[in-house]
Amino acid sequence: MTSENTQKPHDQMAAYLSADMTAVNDLIRDRMASEHAPRIPEVTAHLVEAGGKRLRPMLTLAAARLCGYDGPYHVHLAATVEFIHTATLLHDDVVDESAQRRGRPTANLLWDNKSSVLVGDYLFARSFQLMTETDNMRVLAILSNASATIAEGEVLQLTAAQNLATDEGIYLQVVRGKTAALFSAATQVGGVIASAPDAQVQALFNYGDALGIAFQIVDDLLDYQGDPSATGKNIGDDFRERKLTLPVIKAIAKSDAEERAFWARTIEKGRQEEGDLDHALSLLHKHGTLDETKAEALAWAEKAKTALDTLPDHDLTRMLRDMADYVVARIN
Amino acid sequence: MTSENTQKPHDQMAAYLSADMTAVNDLIRDRMASEHAPRIPEVTAHLVEAGGKRLRPMLTLAAARLCGYDGPYHVHLAATVEFIHTATLLHDDVVDESAQRRGRPTANLLWDNKSSVLVGDYLFARSFQLMTETDNMRVLAILSNASATIAEGEVLQLTAAQNLATDEGIYLQVVRGKTAALFSAATQVGGVIASAPDAQVQALFNYGDALGIAFQIVDDLLDYQGDPSATGKNIGDDFRERKLTLPVIKAIAKSDAEERAFWARTIEKGRQEEGDLDHALSLLHKHGTLDETKAEALAWAEKAKTALDTLPDHDLTRMLRDMADYVVARIN
Repeated sequence: MTSENTQKPHDQMAAYLSADMTAVNDLIRDRMASEHAPRIPEVTAHLVEAGGKRLRPMLTLAAARLCGYDGPYHVHLAATVEFIHTATLLHDDVVDESAQRRGRPTANLLWDNKSSVLVGDYLFARSFQLMTETDNMRVLAILSNASATIAEGEVLQLTAAQNLATDEGIYLQVVRGKTAALFSAATQVGGVIASAPDAQVQALFNYGDALGIAFQIVDDLLDYQGDPSATGKNIGDDFRERKLTLPVIKAIAKSDAEERAFWARTIEKGRQEEGDLDHALSLLHKHGTLDETKAEALAWAEKAKTALDTLPDHDLTRMLRDMADYVVARIN
Repeated sequence: MTSENTQKPHDQMAAYLSADMTAVNDLIRDRMASEHAPRIPEVTAHLVEAGGKRLRPMLTLAAARLCGYDGPYHVHLAATVEFIHTATLLHDDVVDESAQRRGRPTANLLWDNKSSVLVGDYLFARSFQLMTETDNMRVLAILSNASATIAEGEVLQLTAAQNLATDEGIYLQVVRGKTAALFSAATQVGGVIASAPDAQVQALFNYGDALGIAFQIVDDLLDYQGDPSATGKNIGDDFRERKLTLPVIKAIAKSDAEERAFWARTIEKGRQEEGDLDHALSLLHKHGTLDETKAEALAWAEKAKTALDTLPDHDLTRMLRDMADYVVARIN
């Protein structure tokens, strides 16, 4: 067994794409600067250099390369995707009133909400400048559509999160907005910039969409059954924040009157007492919804891998397949 | 004297462009909808239908028409500009913790900061979708640059507003960001979509830039000497909010040690007492900085009119000239 085989898929891909990733990081550092407002690079550096995994820009690079692209613009698109992601995180932390992100205090805590809102806006604008430089109208349409879907998903989540009427269809819409839209745009624009055939572009979209959904479902599941030392999240954060996620939505659908009253009090009205999280967990186990949620995450990961069948046989295609397994490995 | 001559320039232009403006309003109403998240049109309608003057989209329409454009995309660009403006207002009200806008409670008060942040993001994304539909790379570059300049100006204002070292150069940079960048982009893209010669496109940019600067200086001046029943603003709001604007920046530059201590206490440290606004006003009068500020606004309005000399002789060119006079008429 070579050391390559024992590497995580993410690290393998990063090694394979290291020259491209260096170019992406240089471009990000260059474009997050501001001639006039030093607050901007301060805030951005705090987040950009906090050791995010750069998963989304890597997906763009991988998609472009496996479709045979050898121009310069996959780097612009990868940086665009990371800027949109970073802007979204800055605004999310304001909306969620978060205090921690990637194990460090959030920008809204270190500076203030104002800086997070405005620096986020700056990064959105910078992302549009970057994509404009590619001179490719189709990627502009894809990425501006994705940006609208992301914002729409976040607004939908605001109103759906504490509403017991939220069903699996709405959950999926929120997940597509807040997570999968950027994954699928990231992979799709890689194919488009490489002028890949329509069937391959569609396959890349399908892969990103399914991977993003699997990724988010895993995240929501780990909130109820993860190992805090591995995930860096506390069990039950979503419950305490009254976020309706898939395990709970499934449990509510199977609840009797008494259980329904429990969910209405704790999630809808937010009147939580000691012992409520334990009771919530017992209901999830009783109805088997953690296992059902796990099965759905695995099914989406399978769907992601199936989409890859349409793509060229390539080291990167294999790594994307491994990545889909890896995303769900934490719960398997 | 016909009734046309007694109309305000803004109303004259609205009458002249009424068919175009109807198309813009229809497009805005269509695109501010959201299939999945009803909170979005609620928030947007509150602001969009609150009777804003639609000055910026009118500038785009006028610029395109006076350059002879007869295609459909000036309408998209005008709606784009209004969406960017509306998104900026939503985020500004969060940043400024405002409670009123256009005489009505702000969206952040009626709903919450979260909705204002996320619906603003949605409108930004929608604006990029709209401009992408024009299939014109040059307008995309202009409008994405303008968006970055706007956000940069807002961030700069955050750090400059309460800092006595802020000089007229920084003030002008903030004003270009928060106001003039969208005015100049609005007029410039009108010329670009009409394929006007470079000299005319530059003239349209110069007009919008100077008009926007005049507009903002007038706004800042009226905060110290306006008639509240006419402006809808209270005298001294900027002083109470510790915003360093041109009349105060000029007074600080001329201050003796005692006056400087007064500005440091009231603006920099924010320790304001009863009678401070009156004392501030007496200092502005003593140093003649309200008159100096007025002279600068008039000079920018002149500059705007001079820029129009390069443009075709046209009813709309005349109306743009009248508009420049009108913007400063409130202080003249």
